[in-house]
Amino acid sequence: MSINTIGRLLKLGTWGESHGPAIGATLDGCPPGIEIKESMLQHWLDRRKPGQNKYTTQRREEDKVEILSGVFDGKTTGTPIQMLIWNKDQRSRDYTEIREKFRPGHADLTYWHKYGNRDYRGGGRSSARETAARVAAGGVARAILQDIAPSIRITGYMTQIGEMPINRKNFDDKEIEKNPFWCPDASIKEKWADYIMDIRKIGDSIGSMVEVRASGVPPGIGSPLYAKLDSELAAAMMTINAVKSVEIGDGVGVVSLKGSENSDDIRLVENGTIEFDSNHSGGILGGISTGQDVIVRIAIKPASSILIPKKSITIEGVPTEVVTKGRHDPCVGIRAVPVAEAMVALALADQLLIHRGQIGEIRDYSFTVD
Amino acid sequence: MSINTIGRLLKLGTWGESHGPAIGATLDGCPPGIEIKESMLQHWLDRRKPGQNKYTTQRREEDKVEILSGVFDGKTTGTPIQMLIWNKDQRSRDYTEIREKFRPGHADLTYWHKYGNRDYRGGGRSSARETAARVAAGGVARAILQDIAPSIRITGYMTQIGEMPINRKNFDDKEIEKNPFWCPDASIKEKWADYIMDIRKIGDSIGSMVEVRASGVPPGIGSPLYAKLDSELAAAMMTINAVKSVEIGDGVGVVSLKGSENSDDIRLVENGTIEFDSNHSGGILGGISTGQDVIVRIAIKPASSILIPKKSITIEGVPTEVVTKGRHDPCVGIRAVPVAEAMVALALADQLLIHRGQIGEIRDYSFTVD
Amino acid sequence: MSINTIGRLLKLGTWGESHGPAIGATLDGCPPGIEIKESMLQHWLDRRKPGQNKYTTQRREEDKVEILSGVFDGKTTGTPIQMLIWNKDQRSRDYTEIREKFRPGHADLTYWHKYGNRDYRGGGRSSARETAARVAAGGVARAILQDIAPSIRITGYMTQIGEMPINRKNFDDKEIEKNPFWCPDASIKEKWADYIMDIRKIGDSIGSMVEVRASGVPPGIGSPLYAKLDSELAAAMMTINAVKSVEIGDGVGVVSLKGSENSDDIRLVENGTIEFDSNHSGGILGGISTGQDVIVRIAIKPASSILIPKKSITIEGVPTEVVTKGRHDPCVGIRAVPVAEAMVALALADQLLIHRGQIGEIRDYSFTVD
Amino acid sequence: MSINTIGRLLKLGTWGESHGPAIGATLDGCPPGIEIKESMLQHWLDRRKPGQNKYTTQRREEDKVEILSGVFDGKTTGTPIQMLIWNKDQRSRDYTEIREKFRPGHADLTYWHKYGNRDYRGGGRSSARETAARVAAGGVARAILQDIAPSIRITGYMTQIGEMPINRKNFDDKEIEKNPFWCPDASIKEKWADYIMDIRKIGDSIGSMVEVRASGVPPGIGSPLYAKLDSELAAAMMTINAVKSVEIGDGVGVVSLKGSENSDDIRLVENGTIEFDSNHSGGILGGISTGQDVIVRIAIKPASSILIPKKSITIEGVPTEVVTKGRHDPCVGIRAVPVAEAMVALALADQLLIHRGQIGEIRDYSFTVD
Repeated sequence: MSINTIGRLLKLGTWGESHGPAIGATLDGCPPGIEIKESMLQHWLDRRKPGQNKYTTQRREEDKVEILSGVFDGKTTGTPIQMLIWNKDQRSRDYTEIREKFRPGHADLTYWHKYGNRDYRGGGRSSARETAARVAAGGVARAILQDIAPSIRITGYMTQIGEMPINRKNFDDKEIEKNPFWCPDASIKEKWADYIMDIRKIGDSIGSMVEVRASGVPPGIGSPLYAKLDSELAAAMMTINAVKSVEIGDGVGVVSLKGSENSDDIRLVENGTIEFDSNHSGGILGGISTGQDVIVRIAIKPASSILIPKKSITIEGVPTEVVTKGRHDPCVGIRAVPVAEAMVALALADQLLIHRGQIGEIRDYSFTVD
Repeated sequence: MSINTIGRLLKLGTWGESHGPAIGATLDGCPPGIEIKESMLQHWLDRRKPGQNKYTTQRREEDKVEILSGVFDGKTTGTPIQMLIWNKDQRSRDYTEIREKFRPGHADLTYWHKYGNRDYRGGGRSSARETAARVAAGGVARAILQDIAPSIRITGYMTQIGEMPINRKNFDDKEIEKNPFWCPDASIKEKWADYIMDIRKIGDSIGSMVEVRASGVPPGIGSPLYAKLDSELAAAMMTINAVKSVEIGDGVGVVSLKGSENSDDIRLVENGTIEFDSNHSGGILGGISTGQDVIVRIAIKPASSILIPKKSITIEGVPTEVVTKGRHDPCVGIRAVPVAEAMVALALADQLLIHRGQIGEIRDYSFTVD
Repeated sequence: MSINTIGRLLKLGTWGESHGPAIGATLDGCPPGIEIKESMLQHWLDRRKPGQNKYTTQRREEDKVEILSGVFDGKTTGTPIQMLIWNKDQRSRDYTEIREKFRPGHADLTYWHKYGNRDYRGGGRSSARETAARVAAGGVARAILQDIAPSIRITGYMTQIGEMPINRKNFDDKEIEKNPFWCPDASIKEKWADYIMDIRKIGDSIGSMVEVRASGVPPGIGSPLYAKLDSELAAAMMTINAVKSVEIGDGVGVVSLKGSENSDDIRLVENGTIEFDSNHSGGILGGISTGQDVIVRIAIKPASSILIPKKSITIEGVPTEVVTKGRHDPCVGIRAVPVAEAMVALALADQLLIHRGQIGEIRDYSFTVD
Repeated sequence: MSINTIGRLLKLGTWGESHGPAIGATLDGCPPGIEIKESMLQHWLDRRKPGQNKYTTQRREEDKVEILSGVFDGKTTGTPIQMLIWNKDQRSRDYTEIREKFRPGHADLTYWHKYGNRDYRGGGRSSARETAARVAAGGVARAILQDIAPSIRITGYMTQIGEMPINRKNFDDKEIEKNPFWCPDASIKEKWADYIMDIRKIGDSIGSMVEVRASGVPPGIGSPLYAKLDSELAAAMMTINAVKSVEIGDGVGVVSLKGSENSDDIRLVENGTIEFDSNHSGGILGGISTGQDVIVRIAIKPASSILIPKKSITIEGVPTEVVTKGRHDPCVGIRAVPVAEAMVALALADQLLIHRGQIGEIRDYSFTVD
């Protein structure tokens, strides 16, 4: 596995810098015969696209994806799919200051430490712009899932912005697409809107929590021990810019639970299907899916590009202040939702193919009750 | 990367089941010429060993590691190191009931779904017994670190049991080794002791939080984008039994922080070294180490093997109750501390070797101040 | 993929040195539910075992394999299979001279260059003893093939010793098991026997050619572009000690062929099966199996451990002569036959699992002719 | 390692089809700070480019490479380098017949077996056009070698066309670049020219032998056991279209050698350098470089696209004849020379980085002779 690829049988590699000519994704190992159109990928890219509303960065990118290989007559051929996105609105002038200063909270200093040289324009490779390539590839992963495990539904949403969590009692799937925050709780979305506008006005930014639910995942998916489904999801999530935690199911909440509370009782329903009385486990036991909803949750730090001055040094070692005047996201977690969904789709598709390889098609172990 | 190996240049593979004849670890890619003795590995294994005090399981295993290859005349040869641990106290009789029932919170059901058949004795491959092999390999990883980055110190400790967190103001490194809980806060260790005994008496178990700190990590370690240091740590941690979350630095705490609070100001100290005013980032920016302490935190669910009855079904689909009468851990997080340390050591050693391969020996970019 | 493992979904790792306590093979990614007994693996190991006749080395090893994990109640569980072989007849006294001198044609000098230190006893890791572990793993691979592609038959044999090739017109499969050389040509086996005894008497050794044929391989196996079936076979073969060439089908013979002679005409036989008029391709086109016999051929150099003095230097740089007085193989290619078979079985099983993962069960595209 | 990537630390992935919009290469793991210009890569591409003389295909492609990422201010940044080549002279009309018929000796049938559907235009992914991407990446690999092991020189040449081998006594390095066949023997190049024109006239094609020599490879390179330098080279070579054998050093010639003839005597020369009396081994012992010239030789089958009718069937299963009227190569081995060089450069660079990762900078174990 190379350092710029992720996945085992279905392998995503991305390439490109924020202000280079283009970015792209190569997806290798895709099953043949899957219908793929650029418009299908564009659908997901448009959800991540910057400049769509006042709550996200004003950088304007078309983010138009072109498929250069691996698809013929509208179907995958089993060869690598190259998805290219040209960079358009690069405005290099906004970023010249970065050349001379290390921005606190950014990767400027660490790339300099590691590589000695770096493409400083817009953060180069460390820019969240790279995530557009993931979203395109995630579109292909969804098409694969649709083909081999059509029961799977992947849904991402915000559960908290700053100190304002949603109220789980108000959770409504239909609400998620109706607001620019992927907020499933209608009662809080206005407060979030006001709060983000306040944050933007003071030139600051705010953290958030994103959750992704994969329902309909067949039981038996995941490869213990070192490719456990939860481990694969954790690795995938933690590669997304600004992510500082990954939780599965109850996550950090298990610390204060007793064993008698935490384990999910098992029962059989009338048609022979196995069900559970609760889902503390987040749909994964021993690294393998249980058939319940797979629940992954990530904390996303507030963007470090803000108008409020931060102390730093120049590349000459001279003390300085950093104020980022360019375009930024007051709550970068909003645009992370489609990215997180894409990574879940990719990890699931990869593990489904591995399962099929090692074990064969998914078996149904439901009990038939007479 | 196979499904039972982890790492890229320094690759750990483990094998073996809880009640098979033996378990073991194969470590491949180790640099030659590193001094390794079985006693060095035994030192770390003894920390994890069960049956040492009343707060952990009473299974008694010598956990004596034998090195079968890769070490000659007391030094590594650069070939695979095989570390074997015979299983001794297997007591199969305790576990016969598992054969017929799916234990809630365990991997019984999911292994059955995935593989069709399973080694049900003591959880087979899904048992935490496998983690002994990791600890042995972690001992080698520490020796590698000592050789190529001797500044690194890896320290694990408990920060919370149930609803009782430590008080960070009382944090004392010297306290950690003085109590059976790896508790760095002398003021709470007695309460923890009482609480765990209470939990044991009622036949229940409790969750906990473990933190690992790696200090002295040179800046520049980690391989963006898909082998970021935080992603590698997240994957490694999430493969440990019972882990339900991984946090880096402030972790879930970043959700309620503003950008102006969260990013760590950079400054130069007199000798030309770069320092930071805070460490919200947990020592990692853009997937690369900053030179600050690397902080990883994991939530560990309460053990599911308890004396309190849980509802389940048999492998015939008949409703039943499960009570685990065997030996168990009231707070399994205690024994997870040495395992978590081992996984951090392995991930760091792997990334250091990758760095050396791609870029060469660690460079010092400190500024010289006249 | 680590440097001591081979394979992608079905991954073999070996460990151990010639004169360490043991050697072993770890096979990861095996499908569950496959019947495996130690006696099945022993069957193949006994074919490779030294000391069986006067044509091979007199080192006596029981080569008794023990399965330590991954098999339960006689069936694979889908977890790593550890196969351990204790070293018994180590006779370290034979090899003390190696410590001080670099043996020409051996890996002594290159290991010293690479690692600085080395386990010099019997060649350490570079000894052909390691191939016993491959043969054990090959036994599991054969059982996997029997389960998922039972039409496959893998047969290895010698086609040339020194300047004495077999006559292809006399080729008789039934002859192969009847002589200690795996010779398929009854008319030459006596000459080989005499020749090898002559070589042994003068303390020299001789090269040989081994061919492996896999018949019944379903069409469609192999993963273009960089895991082509021929590339996978070439890599696997070239890891065997003393192998200096790998040919597929006509191999080096294609150099003097015209395109009109070399390509195999395609035709349909009555039952709708696709057949070919010849098999210059060795059963592989574009890296994918055609359904014809897969033919792999390897040249094996004469063993370098001989009684005839060779010039070298000591580890102090002093000119010296090397005479290897220990036990050796006059024609080491004889014992390479079971090893080559094992590597073909492993490569095919791996590619069959990958095929199933990416594409699903093997499809039958035969034409039905009314 | 994905099925369309090769390498371990330095990983090449290629993508694209013969008649899609573009092909490309992604090179990941490149050290930072290496000078790379498009013109450097173009230099090597121009050597492979079709349509340059009457001995190769008349397809005209500019084969102009564009670097889209990973290089900034003329130097590598350590991030993935994307090299894109647009397809220009695609002439789809030449290839419509392929849609309905399986061409003997081509991958048409096997891709159909494997994938069910295929991009039939010009062979799609199985076309030798893909090798242009390898040559571009090979240019970067050469720059890496120049940086970390500047002693290395990689030289490819033809040693045989049809039944006409070169005479090794006439071998002259300076001759290689002076003729369109990379022929090192001035006495035979005219005969080759005539012979190829004859072959072209009768609409046939002819096989050939290509050898690559890497001189100046430091001793100690290669990763036993399953990433031996010879195994890595064998795998890399066998992925090149039309290659049917790989030999190291004496290759198939070792079959008729005795041990006393085959092993290369070792001696010390005045300055303390270790030398050998011969190079039967091809510069590799135990999978590790000896410091001598590394010699790899490949047999390349005659192109299957010829004007002479071959028997086949249609995709409906109807018997038919195939005559390929498009442009073709009478001796495709000519254009394979730059491709083989590129693959050797990539394999060596990868193993050098792995060596540095596991062991550190190359050590000099020469003896100092007073």
